[in-house]
Amino acid sequence: MNQTPPHPIRQGRRARQAARAAEVTPRLGTIRYGVKPVELVSRDELEHIHLASLWILKEIGIDFRDPVALNQWKKAGADVRGQRVHLDPDLVTGLLAQAPDRFEMTGRGADTRFEIGVDTVSFCPMQGAPNIRDLDGTRRFSTLDDLRRINKLIQMSPGFHMATGFACEPTEIPVPWRHLHINHTNLVETDLAYFGLTTGQERAEDSIAMARIAHGADFLEQNAVIMGQISGNSPLVWDSTMLEGLRVFAAANQVVLISPFVLGAANTPADVVATVAQLNAEAIAGIAYAQLVKPGTKTIYGQYSVSVSMKTGAPMSGMPEVSQMNALVGQLARRYQIPWRTTASQASSKSFDAQSGYESATSYMAAVTSNANFLLHAGGWDEAGMVHCLSKLIVDAEQNLLMAKYAAGVRFDRLQEALEAVRRVGPGGHYLGDEFTLKHFQDAFFAPEILDYEAYEQWQARGSKDTQTRAAEKAEALLRDYEHPSLDIARHEELDAFVARRQTEISPSIA
Amino acid sequence: MNQTPPHPIRQGRRARQAARAAEVTPRLGTIRYGVKPVELVSRDELEHIHLASLWILKEIGIDFRDPVALNQWKKAGADVRGQRVHLDPDLVTGLLAQAPDRFEMTGRGADTRFEIGVDTVSFCPMQGAPNIRDLDGTRRFSTLDDLRRINKLIQMSPGFHMATGFACEPTEIPVPWRHLHINHTNLVETDLAYFGLTTGQERAEDSIAMARIAHGADFLEQNAVIMGQISGNSPLVWDSTMLEGLRVFAAANQVVLISPFVLGAANTPADVVATVAQLNAEAIAGIAYAQLVKPGTKTIYGQYSVSVSMKTGAPMSGMPEVSQMNALVGQLARRYQIPWRTTASQASSKSFDAQSGYESATSYMAAVTSNANFLLHAGGWDEAGMVHCLSKLIVDAEQNLLMAKYAAGVRFDRLQEALEAVRRVGPGGHYLGDEFTLKHFQDAFFAPEILDYEAYEQWQARGSKDTQTRAAEKAEALLRDYEHPSLDIARHEELDAFVARRQTEISPSIA
Repeated sequence: MNQTPPHPIRQGRRARQAARAAEVTPRLGTIRYGVKPVELVSRDELEHIHLASLWILKEIGIDFRDPVALNQWKKAGADVRGQRVHLDPDLVTGLLAQAPDRFEMTGRGADTRFEIGVDTVSFCPMQGAPNIRDLDGTRRFSTLDDLRRINKLIQMSPGFHMATGFACEPTEIPVPWRHLHINHTNLVETDLAYFGLTTGQERAEDSIAMARIAHGADFLEQNAVIMGQISGNSPLVWDSTMLEGLRVFAAANQVVLISPFVLGAANTPADVVATVAQLNAEAIAGIAYAQLVKPGTKTIYGQYSVSVSMKTGAPMSGMPEVSQMNALVGQLARRYQIPWRTTASQASSKSFDAQSGYESATSYMAAVTSNANFLLHAGGWDEAGMVHCLSKLIVDAEQNLLMAKYAAGVRFDRLQEALEAVRRVGPGGHYLGDEFTLKHFQDAFFAPEILDYEAYEQWQARGSKDTQTRAAEKAEALLRDYEHPSLDIARHEELDAFVARRQTEISPSIA
Repeated sequence: MNQTPPHPIRQGRRARQAARAAEVTPRLGTIRYGVKPVELVSRDELEHIHLASLWILKEIGIDFRDPVALNQWKKAGADVRGQRVHLDPDLVTGLLAQAPDRFEMTGRGADTRFEIGVDTVSFCPMQGAPNIRDLDGTRRFSTLDDLRRINKLIQMSPGFHMATGFACEPTEIPVPWRHLHINHTNLVETDLAYFGLTTGQERAEDSIAMARIAHGADFLEQNAVIMGQISGNSPLVWDSTMLEGLRVFAAANQVVLISPFVLGAANTPADVVATVAQLNAEAIAGIAYAQLVKPGTKTIYGQYSVSVSMKTGAPMSGMPEVSQMNALVGQLARRYQIPWRTTASQASSKSFDAQSGYESATSYMAAVTSNANFLLHAGGWDEAGMVHCLSKLIVDAEQNLLMAKYAAGVRFDRLQEALEAVRRVGPGGHYLGDEFTLKHFQDAFFAPEILDYEAYEQWQARGSKDTQTRAAEKAEALLRDYEHPSLDIARHEELDAFVARRQTEISPSIA
């Protein structure tokens, strides 16, 4: 008989593996706010801003630089003079009322469905960077390979609800072809909902076509799997390119994010309240238009807001006025009962240093304390969006988990049991060994992995690794462990073929 | 006749000097919240927590390990068994009602008066660090010279309402003498209100005596110039040393900060709501005792809260549960109408890196969105309080200005004028040259000095300086420009003599 005990090291390893498996954090699902938002202004003051926006749309008007949209507005009874549309308050509010207050998005993966609603919060990484700050800290133009690596990290990180499409620009791919490769890597490297491309009719249609290949036409008809960002051109202009994208995404029952782009004091008045009155006019005109195109279109009230330095013209993030704009936009969006988006983890630093952290956390907290429903750029954003920082993507993925826990609020169902622990432990006692602690500590207090809480001497003994370094090591481990999510081989091949065919159709002479 | 125009360069310099002088930021004064706080729980739920705290104080009781206090409680009708005091709800709430909802503090300087009230916010740097992280990034035991340098930086920074007493430990000074030198440098290097020492009768009396020398006895009788931190010993213990300090400060009409010390899951239950119920019991028992000692004593509802990692036992800051505790304590303190303190800029990083920024800004925003009235440790805190980081002190001083602007809320008085600008500029226009912008940009949007918003190439051309480096340069400039605030020469000499005499009295054999 073999009386030898199991090999202690192997047993230890098994135990550790089992412990790790048990500790795997599930992907964030639908998170409902359990904390009420800050209210920056009274109900009367809010009404004042709302009326100012309606006044702007009626008296000043807003440009829709797009013949199709101008015709649609005319038919709807708007006062159209050239490209300028003057909107009656009733017309605007009537259309706004058709926007849903909640809807679901989903990817292919079993754990990828989540709700975007007026009482939920969701997280999506940054998009649009022309550069990356790589894991070794070097900064350079980003490539398709970088985008694929980023998508792999997003797929491996439970802190993201969605992939973000063009997380960075694949700068070596000719511009007319880029959207094909962006859609391709989002569908192949992740099984998440993601952002398609909306810059014009063709790119939007290609995005929808590729999502249809990966998901199937019926599934796409019934489910929102792809979001389109419709950026405004402030002050008070909606351009044709974006409106084409809007129409394609709306027709396909997908989600449109209507985002005015505020550079406070440059394209808005040098005043917080007036800036919000203008951006709100732009946002509600855009949302109203989406409802005019197709009633019930799944829309998100968007906005990208920074203030501008009068010394240098540079956009400034992490600023108090931007936090205030968040609170105001939140109050307005809740008045309209439309889910709203803000920018989280918005930083301007040229290295992943303390400034980057201050700005990011300020914008995170401004977002969740204003009960924002969709946090865009919540991962990787630095240098005012000019760079996707891979280490920061990892840190932000963890921040998202922290913010989700904050947002979800507190529970009262253990209070009685806990008060018995207070009695048991008594004055001067300690809780570490108490049964209540042992039973509940794991979900009572979040224990981060990337943020480090060791004592100085321990930290030094482990190599004095700063945040950038620890996050880079984590990213490398995730990339090593990465496996492609399942995708039907026939669909995968069809996606490949679609990219090849469309490249040739669009511009065979490139490359 | 001299027709030569003024020398252009000199004129330029004069203009720049004049512009700089005009730009000097005034010290923060009384700042009233213009934004409503987050409400984490409903009124009923809040009452539930309040009642749980009263239940704890009545049924479990709380230890006052101090014979004087036990006698006072007995006389007040409390049920005292040994060191354990069982408090009737009516006794507690009756005493709480005697705590003022607002009071002023002031230093010697003309601009140093400010109000601490249930609707104001104020900022004070960190205290208690045994190490400093110097401007070149090195970490070492702190000295009296470091404390003096820190006090000079505090004096030069408009973002601090107060100096903080023992901003770092003067570790080379023998412990029995330290409080004398700490009081001395706060009174000599700054003209601000500050924290005296409360660890026992003698040190508290020395602190009050030195404040009396610097300010004059009459002034001290009429004005609060010094604050005493009374730390609790959780769970549910108030120790004699601290209670002695409380009595001395209360008798001198100075401010007492009653601060339970929460290590969530170690000295409280592993539950957010129950932790707050316990810390609230401790806080209101301490505040009630201060009112029993002297009705109307200026008290602040304090608390220091972190959660504890069950993996390492380390305190964790920037965590969602601590942000939630802030919101709950804010709701309770407003229920009692007593100003409350929290910890801002609470970081754990071993270098002034991204983690330090994330944690700090999270705690800042948690504090102001919960409408905290007194933000302690809002400057320099890192490594869970084990280090005072001088560069971080400078960055936090600027963060305080940002937080103050956020807290103050928005103005509506320019909205009509701004809407005229929207009309003037119109769709597709730009605001940079508009008269409204030129008139109002300076106070519309905050423009930081330490946070950097330059483009990558500009930043690189200026030496690729990270936050730590830029802040260190600013600190060196402030130290160069520093001048001692005015202090009557006779009083200065009397302070010197007091220190010398008391050193000999306390322990002539040291040194």
